[in-house]
Amino acid sequence: MLLHLSTWPEIEAFLERSRTIVIPIGSNEQHGPTGLLGTDWLCPEIIAHEAQKTADILVGPTFNIGMAQHHLGFPGTISLRPSTFIAAIGDWVRSLAGHGFDHIYFLNGHGGNIATIEAAFSELYVEASFVGRPRGFALKLRSWWDLPGVSELAQRQFPVGHGSHATPSEIAITQWAYPDAIKHANYAPQIAPTGPIREALDFRKRFPDGRMGSDPGLATPDKGGELVALATAALIADIAAFAADPVFGL
Amino acid sequence: MLLHLSTWPEIEAFLERSRTIVIPIGSNEQHGPTGLLGTDWLCPEIIAHEAQKTADILVGPTFNIGMAQHHLGFPGTISLRPSTFIAAIGDWVRSLAGHGFDHIYFLNGHGGNIATIEAAFSELYVEASFVGRPRGFALKLRSWWDLPGVSELAQRQFPVGHGSHATPSEIAITQWAYPDAIKHANYAPQIAPTGPIREALDFRKRFPDGRMGSDPGLATPDKGGELVALATAALIADIAAFAADPVFGL
Amino acid sequence: MLLHLSTWPEIEAFLERSRTIVIPIGSNEQHGPTGLLGTDWLCPEIIAHEAQKTADILVGPTFNIGMAQHHLGFPGTISLRPSTFIAAIGDWVRSLAGHGFDHIYFLNGHGGNIATIEAAFSELYVEASFVGRPRGFALKLRSWWDLPGVSELAQRQFPVGHGSHATPSEIAITQWAYPDAIKHANYAPQIAPTGPIREALDFRKRFPDGRMGSDPGLATPDKGGELVALATAALIADIAAFAADPVFGL
Amino acid sequence: MLLHLSTWPEIEAFLERSRTIVIPIGSNEQHGPTGLLGTDWLCPEIIAHEAQKTADILVGPTFNIGMAQHHLGFPGTISLRPSTFIAAIGDWVRSLAGHGFDHIYFLNGHGGNIATIEAAFSELYVEASFVGRPRGFALKLRSWWDLPGVSELAQRQFPVGHGSHATPSEIAITQWAYPDAIKHANYAPQIAPTGPIREALDFRKRFPDGRMGSDPGLATPDKGGELVALATAALIADIAAFAADPVFGL
Amino acid sequence: MLLHLSTWPEIEAFLERSRTIVIPIGSNEQHGPTGLLGTDWLCPEIIAHEAQKTADILVGPTFNIGMAQHHLGFPGTISLRPSTFIAAIGDWVRSLAGHGFDHIYFLNGHGGNIATIEAAFSELYVEASFVGRPRGFALKLRSWWDLPGVSELAQRQFPVGHGSHATPSEIAITQWAYPDAIKHANYAPQIAPTGPIREALDFRKRFPDGRMGSDPGLATPDKGGELVALATAALIADIAAFAADPVFGL
Amino acid sequence: MLLHLSTWPEIEAFLERSRTIVIPIGSNEQHGPTGLLGTDWLCPEIIAHEAQKTADILVGPTFNIGMAQHHLGFPGTISLRPSTFIAAIGDWVRSLAGHGFDHIYFLNGHGGNIATIEAAFSELYVEASFVGRPRGFALKLRSWWDLPGVSELAQRQFPVGHGSHATPSEIAITQWAYPDAIKHANYAPQIAPTGPIREALDFRKRFPDGRMGSDPGLATPDKGGELVALATAALIADIAAFAADPVFGL
Repeated sequence: MLLHLSTWPEIEAFLERSRTIVIPIGSNEQHGPTGLLGTDWLCPEIIAHEAQKTADILVGPTFNIGMAQHHLGFPGTISLRPSTFIAAIGDWVRSLAGHGFDHIYFLNGHGGNIATIEAAFSELYVEASFVGRPRGFALKLRSWWDLPGVSELAQRQFPVGHGSHATPSEIAITQWAYPDAIKHANYAPQIAPTGPIREALDFRKRFPDGRMGSDPGLATPDKGGELVALATAALIADIAAFAADPVFGL
Repeated sequence: MLLHLSTWPEIEAFLERSRTIVIPIGSNEQHGPTGLLGTDWLCPEIIAHEAQKTADILVGPTFNIGMAQHHLGFPGTISLRPSTFIAAIGDWVRSLAGHGFDHIYFLNGHGGNIATIEAAFSELYVEASFVGRPRGFALKLRSWWDLPGVSELAQRQFPVGHGSHATPSEIAITQWAYPDAIKHANYAPQIAPTGPIREALDFRKRFPDGRMGSDPGLATPDKGGELVALATAALIADIAAFAADPVFGL
Repeated sequence: MLLHLSTWPEIEAFLERSRTIVIPIGSNEQHGPTGLLGTDWLCPEIIAHEAQKTADILVGPTFNIGMAQHHLGFPGTISLRPSTFIAAIGDWVRSLAGHGFDHIYFLNGHGGNIATIEAAFSELYVEASFVGRPRGFALKLRSWWDLPGVSELAQRQFPVGHGSHATPSEIAITQWAYPDAIKHANYAPQIAPTGPIREALDFRKRFPDGRMGSDPGLATPDKGGELVALATAALIADIAAFAADPVFGL
Repeated sequence: MLLHLSTWPEIEAFLERSRTIVIPIGSNEQHGPTGLLGTDWLCPEIIAHEAQKTADILVGPTFNIGMAQHHLGFPGTISLRPSTFIAAIGDWVRSLAGHGFDHIYFLNGHGGNIATIEAAFSELYVEASFVGRPRGFALKLRSWWDLPGVSELAQRQFPVGHGSHATPSEIAITQWAYPDAIKHANYAPQIAPTGPIREALDFRKRFPDGRMGSDPGLATPDKGGELVALATAALIADIAAFAADPVFGL
Repeated sequence: MLLHLSTWPEIEAFLERSRTIVIPIGSNEQHGPTGLLGTDWLCPEIIAHEAQKTADILVGPTFNIGMAQHHLGFPGTISLRPSTFIAAIGDWVRSLAGHGFDHIYFLNGHGGNIATIEAAFSELYVEASFVGRPRGFALKLRSWWDLPGVSELAQRQFPVGHGSHATPSEIAITQWAYPDAIKHANYAPQIAPTGPIREALDFRKRFPDGRMGSDPGLATPDKGGELVALATAALIADIAAFAADPVFGL
Repeated sequence: MLLHLSTWPEIEAFLERSRTIVIPIGSNEQHGPTGLLGTDWLCPEIIAHEAQKTADILVGPTFNIGMAQHHLGFPGTISLRPSTFIAAIGDWVRSLAGHGFDHIYFLNGHGGNIATIEAAFSELYVEASFVGRPRGFALKLRSWWDLPGVSELAQRQFPVGHGSHATPSEIAITQWAYPDAIKHANYAPQIAPTGPIREALDFRKRFPDGRMGSDPGLATPDKGGELVALATAALIADIAAFAADPVFGL
């Protein structure tokens, strides 16, 4: 069930049977010479939208801009400051918690988001923790590649050249979902370098075409489909386990 | 050209021929018993995506959560505080301006966004205005119903019962684009009441099913298609005029 | 009744018979070669102070600095950032609501304030809307030229050359109230140009002497007096209607 | 010269001969059973406006709402949070500094403002201090009773019962300037108690009628006139000394 | 009793017998050619740690970075912006108040902190004052030199050349506590100049070696020991008086 | 070299030979029935202070309060909100970078700090990344247990019952450094439970005595000494490697 294609009475009815919601969250940022700028928000959106086709899961709108400051040296990247990102996640959660959702699950598509999303969760919890009152909801962050079995499959598919940014696994997923948007380029070197992540100018100097440790040329739509199938099943199970975990203090 | 389905080298190339970008911006909020929660971000997305099929226009990701505090009494609504909305728009613009975009056009789908978006523009401009240095970009807000000719068409299509929220025109547009998500209900009264907009509890009391002055039962996919066709053409012309308007102070 | 010339026991007594207060709000900004820098806060102050002479209305201190970033290219302009303006309006309202005022009416004198004041109202309401509790007050923004009948009179007085900034109507009002501060200059052109409002440098380039579409030379103290008389009567009626409108959710 | 009754060309001309401006700053808060709510912004306004009648001094609009949280237990008090106050003072200064004012003098009327105004100055300076660049302006805070000779005169006028809030000296000044707004009451006790300042409820408990250590019944318009005359002369001298003090680092 | 060397059950037990806590607060900033960068946080820490050896006082961790923007022209200075300082003090107090501490005493070591700490207190109180609910705690700021008798002793010890920054009294205290870190230099001039405090570049120009009005060469460890002994006794008495003062409104 | 026991000329001299500084950063929070509240800031302080005894390393003041919202259910815990923590880290870095430090190394003692510190780094970098200018410094976060070899030693020392909070390794380090503050208690159960971290009330319910998965009874001062010795050597090497890593974009 997609929230944005539902009406408010339909959500009101859903809340009668479940108080859990899934928010795909990612980033809009360069993904090397052939990766789509939307890769990191498209991947969790693709997986979550697949999941709700077969399970009674409510999927909210996609949070499509995250923390990508290090990629700003490449055109098309859009980033929030961490402080803005924290404020915005806070308002999404405040809105949803006000409706009675008490298990809010963020399916993440960007490693660079993780620290700030965790900080945003703490920023929400601390309002209650300072005053010794219950907040009454549980927040969970899960990156799609951390769903059980997914990174193992990716390592089997891409034993060499997976890397950490513009990886063949994420590009394969977008190829499967958007076959008309498959791009090609020569990669030089075939496998990109690795190194630390700092400010944008430093990043572009270290990673001239935007890739980190990866060879996106290995991606195929079929491998993307395998990843989506496995991730979708794992997501459904992961949400069920989360929904069953109590929130103490209520 | 859709930014999120493009690569950074493609955006770099686009910047050689144009420094204008379009951002669909809306809200995720209740739209009465039959309107989709995504209506206000889907409408500008639909129109902008149509426009880039026939014109060399760059369309960014959709900014899908806006200022909808008054709708929070209805499940499924997600709202940013105005201060968060201002910060987030600021970061989008800072990111895009950093890449060289100097004409940033927001195609809006929610009346309740207008005040805060205008405030966000001023928040960006004032950084330069305080110190007497040029900011170097122009920002434009246009709601799709204010594109030349659009509200005239809507008034011809719906001379009675158009209203101001959950209008038949916006619902018709989503019906045209998402025919599988057309919903039905009995409206009582047929035309919803009108009144002032204040906090959420007051709003729900005044507008029990969420509509304001409208009869969404008048919407049809065909009328939606007519609105999209007209709005798309008007958008292309409006962007061209905006792009031609100089930014003084550079 | 002027709050700043009253004592707290007098306000306590007023609250026994009314919970409505009027705040004149404006801006301190250039108004062309002959308009006073204080024009936009003087006009609502003049009208509100007149109104409380004949009606049992409580008028608070004047909020004299608003959002005028686009005028910062002209000496004497003082502007708040929108985020500061929102915070300050919030604290005024929090203070007044804490005393029991539940209808707070802002009589505005500056078009450039409108968006941010509306955003400030939403910032206040959303605190309650997120948590489903009543805020318990109603906020109203009314620009003096939007009081019933006022802009019609101004159009009759100045059928040509009214324009939108440094208008003869606002200058006439200050001439009526501050006859010792009437200034003279040659206007070239007689009617100023029009155009979009962006950052300060761009504004000064487009509007070299600060006027927008206006011929302030048409202003006279007598016309100002007519405007004040009409606006004062309209304000008294408008406040009465507002005070009678219930706040739901209490 | 009053900025708000001047035009921008007049301010431009003033900047040719001086880069110093005076801002009256105060608070709108309870002043006991007979003191005006506006006392703390009226006093510096009265003195500064007097001063500009005989000296070539530019006086800006009055900053009329300050930090008065402890008085919020009494109706009519309006307070900014310190964080809001800091932001607003910052924007006033940024606006004025942008026009070329490099000596900005705040004539204060409220003891409770002092800490936050000093913090606001540091908040402005630190922007430059972090990066080792000159800010280029000097800010000065002077409470009117700290002008040379003023508190000595007040002590001579009111050797007993001056106190620290709702003092006979400040009330005398408003009596001199607003003789039609002189209020009367029986004071019990004749001299109010003293004690620490904390939150509003604690304050009202300790100081039931709002006075701190004072007997406002001693105030007379004549004594107010003496205070104004002395303060006005001292202000003119103090501004001259400030204007002559260089700003290093330019 | 030092909080950081205690366990949570020990603090729980302490709260059974007292709800008062002492926080040493200072600044890390240049103190002339021979003063330690830590002087301003070491001094209150030294005195508070001494006091808890003989009295049943709970001393929290030292708040070691304060508002020192004017010293940023000298290497080693670390400063918070006032807005950050206010936020951080707020969170310390919120944490402690949440545990039941209702008398929180800040023993300060830096004059430049005073304004911002007072503003931080008001920022905390105003949350309650706006809504007419009790905050329920009392905050007290005391600089160590303002403890009864201390500045009188310092004036006797250093009748000439005490000054206001890098004073012989504060340096003597650190010499007594950290004899291995005593530094020597030639002072030219022997007694440093005085003047206003503004931004960092201006400060370094006016006070080339960092001292203000002081001759630190007068400091000796013995004089430091005398100051510590007196301040420690005075602190114990001051805390007892504060703890006995009720918080109204509970 | 300890910054707080140095003078500004000594830091100026240090900057001639190195532009790297180490900041111990931790948290003040409950550590179970026997762990010190200061454990998480004492551990990195102990290690860093040891390291500077044998290597030419500059160690700044300890940042002793971090993000510990989940521990606020236990008396003595003090936590910053993530937003405050980000602001404060920012000001420390801005201060140090202003002096010319371009490699700033945070030695961390609290797992709960990691997300927010990383977010703080991004908040600093993004200021430069938005505008395409170099920030010019590198920031590094290293938790002491992630120094090469340290967690391997801890696993050898405590193969069972190490856990993740109030671990025997961190308690052993404080026992080694503060032998007078060793505390004893009966643990029930001997090894604490594990589970997710959410708001404070939920945390106390899941972890009644504050420990997570650990048996602190295994700690001894000797084992602490071994950990400190290994960590100290590893820290010196890690800092040297960091200092040698260039900052691109300068």
